[in-house]
Amino acid sequence: MRAIDIIQKKRDGIELNEIEIKTILNNYLKNEIPDYQMSAFLMAIYFNGMSRNELKFFTQTMLNSGEQIKFEGIKHFLIDKHSTGGVGDKTTVALAGLFSFFNIGTAKLSGKGLGHTGGTIDKFEAIPSFTFPETRKELIDMINITGTGIMGYSDTIVPLDKKLYSLRDVTATVPSIPLIASSIMSKKLAVYADAIILDVKVGSGAFMKDLEQAKKLSETMIDLGNSFKRKVVAILTNMEQPLGFAVGNSNEVIEAIETLKGNGPKDFTELLINIVALALCLKEKNKNMDEAKSEVEQAILKGKGVEPLKRFIKTYGGDEKIIDDYSLLPKAKFRYEFKIKKSGWISQIKAENIGKSAMVLGAGRATKDDIIDYSVGITLTKKVGDFVKEGEVVAIIEHNGKNLESSLDFLESAYKIVDEKIETPKVIYEILSNLEEKI
Amino acid sequence: MRAIDIIQKKRDGIELNEIEIKTILNNYLKNEIPDYQMSAFLMAIYFNGMSRNELKFFTQTMLNSGEQIKFEGIKHFLIDKHSTGGVGDKTTVALAGLFSFFNIGTAKLSGKGLGHTGGTIDKFEAIPSFTFPETRKELIDMINITGTGIMGYSDTIVPLDKKLYSLRDVTATVPSIPLIASSIMSKKLAVYADAIILDVKVGSGAFMKDLEQAKKLSETMIDLGNSFKRKVVAILTNMEQPLGFAVGNSNEVIEAIETLKGNGPKDFTELLINIVALALCLKEKNKNMDEAKSEVEQAILKGKGVEPLKRFIKTYGGDEKIIDDYSLLPKAKFRYEFKIKKSGWISQIKAENIGKSAMVLGAGRATKDDIIDYSVGITLTKKVGDFVKEGEVVAIIEHNGKNLESSLDFLESAYKIVDEKIETPKVIYEILSNLEEKI
Repeated sequence: MRAIDIIQKKRDGIELNEIEIKTILNNYLKNEIPDYQMSAFLMAIYFNGMSRNELKFFTQTMLNSGEQIKFEGIKHFLIDKHSTGGVGDKTTVALAGLFSFFNIGTAKLSGKGLGHTGGTIDKFEAIPSFTFPETRKELIDMINITGTGIMGYSDTIVPLDKKLYSLRDVTATVPSIPLIASSIMSKKLAVYADAIILDVKVGSGAFMKDLEQAKKLSETMIDLGNSFKRKVVAILTNMEQPLGFAVGNSNEVIEAIETLKGNGPKDFTELLINIVALALCLKEKNKNMDEAKSEVEQAILKGKGVEPLKRFIKTYGGDEKIIDDYSLLPKAKFRYEFKIKKSGWISQIKAENIGKSAMVLGAGRATKDDIIDYSVGITLTKKVGDFVKEGEVVAIIEHNGKNLESSLDFLESAYKIVDEKIETPKVIYEILSNLEEKI
Repeated sequence: MRAIDIIQKKRDGIELNEIEIKTILNNYLKNEIPDYQMSAFLMAIYFNGMSRNELKFFTQTMLNSGEQIKFEGIKHFLIDKHSTGGVGDKTTVALAGLFSFFNIGTAKLSGKGLGHTGGTIDKFEAIPSFTFPETRKELIDMINITGTGIMGYSDTIVPLDKKLYSLRDVTATVPSIPLIASSIMSKKLAVYADAIILDVKVGSGAFMKDLEQAKKLSETMIDLGNSFKRKVVAILTNMEQPLGFAVGNSNEVIEAIETLKGNGPKDFTELLINIVALALCLKEKNKNMDEAKSEVEQAILKGKGVEPLKRFIKTYGGDEKIIDDYSLLPKAKFRYEFKIKKSGWISQIKAENIGKSAMVLGAGRATKDDIIDYSVGITLTKKVGDFVKEGEVVAIIEHNGKNLESSLDFLESAYKIVDEKIETPKVIYEILSNLEEKI
């Protein structure tokens, strides 16, 4: 079976069988098929998509390219909450407290961030002395103590995804729904969880720029997960503007803690309530979503997630005193107040630009070897729908003297002010699943 | 300007400008853009095509990648007759005699064959001592003596085509009309001729499997040629079955000579008449096609092309006595009569299979380093539309004991016999040009 014949079939829209898909992918991983054939194949997939069966075989081959982990000896119901990536997304930090309070377990591998701001791993590492487990045994111990087990991805999990993604990244074949779905889902499937919650971000700051595409991606991932006998729920959320106010690392950790204390931004709090409520419905068959949401709301109002987060940080070797004393977190030397130049209603705060504005300060990595400065970041003081007066401060830049100019340029171009009143945008567009209709 | 941005634009169907096309192609030629980006770009072109302007810039860049030749000191009106490649196509051999008789010049570079059977260069080289000129000066001398100047392609002509074609060949991006058009036309444009006649083959033995695609390719090439201020005419011809009876090298040379003597196969003779008549119309403004055709017909009946071909062969150092004594040509040791197993009308003789049947005997090259055996080949005795009886000989295999079995397998699968009478297929489907309507 020659690679060119498989490429040609895909190009001509003829469905590939399991053997053909396995052959081209496995031989690529073994370097027996060159990059130039794979990139032509990926571009053909970009145009012709993949059938349900093709996508299943594709994802299966990805999954089988590396190690698969099923943790033994864990009593918790395990949820893997995955976000497709946004700006200001500190959800996992807050979930460590709330999931634990509700006796929901998490066993997941997280990535370091590449792009706008740090990933989940980076945000936790902003906490002094915080250290992720390095072995599976340590991870299981952590889950049994705190409910939450997080460690960084290793190269042994879906190595084919790494190789394919590097190629897609330079051949304009990233934004293909089946390729995105198989990349995300193969990694989720490689590490066992009882249910998967996908937070699919929609908007200028996300992979999926419009709702229709995001729905298609969500449905594809749910269907794919189900074909591997996993419960999958997708929550489609707004990423036109950053989530919450804080964009960075230290400042996002603070915002996550404040949210657990009941003082969080409205949008982030709403997202958190929905995700935890979804997790409760997945765990407990007879619970309905409204009931679950008010339970979570009460828990937040009463600060029930704070102590569990404290315990989580301590168990991971971190300084748990940061919960009550934010000055123990890395702090930037300088503070710059960014003022708006025009009065009116804020109709746009482009998430992508805010992300880049924080990244150039050092909050994110442009290349994988960059070192993150946890202390820097952008903290918005206003959001879309707010009225602002000329000269009013709309964002605070915490920086260490690096790239302030360039950061300001990104900020300048992020805002749009209009003369007519703007509604506060929706946080959650839709929740998709093919479980029972109760959600 | 990054390659990925250019690929992305093409992927998204946005028209590329001249600078973008030049950048990606020239940097590819300089090895500054890797194969894996170019193959993704080519696949995006496969799906999205190219606009008129894009194709012009693309072809211009191809053309400029190498040397361009304009012969000085030639008085003949120069025609470059190009065939898109078929099985049993010995047209150029016969044209060397007829064009010369009609005072039409030819200055062209020809390729060695890769695939079914030898190319034009190989067919002439079947003639003992025949030698192609190696310098431009020699070529011009040849044209001034014989009217016909042919030499092999050099790497200095459109080197970008060679590099791109090698990549297309292994990435399933060959059958793209704009890519085929730019590949053919850049090479035609690189060597000056007053007019170009494109013989676009249609059918199972050709690049273009159906008439609609062939028309599209022809129109694209005519338009492209015109945008470079060249007269271009396309003749769409049948390549469902081989052209004439002979498929090989020695045997094709004999068939070409026999045709000039007035004893040629009906289909090949008709094609020859049309091509020469087209050339006459291109050369002489006031001539009409019917008039031209009857002139050529008369010339063939009277054997007017024979002496000029003799002179041509002699001038190129070949043994001109072959014209009257075919035994001087390379001759195979063995002869096998292939008999049909069923009575009825021949409805199909798949050109591709006959080509492969001859190739495995040694008449063509599977890889560019193979050495051609000029003496071997297939000579049909019947064609589509003929009635045959069970056990009747339909083809003669001349071979040297190599791969007879495999050759027979290809022959077996080439034929289809039906019980109802079949019409003799058309030789010429259509002639396309955007010159004055007289053609």
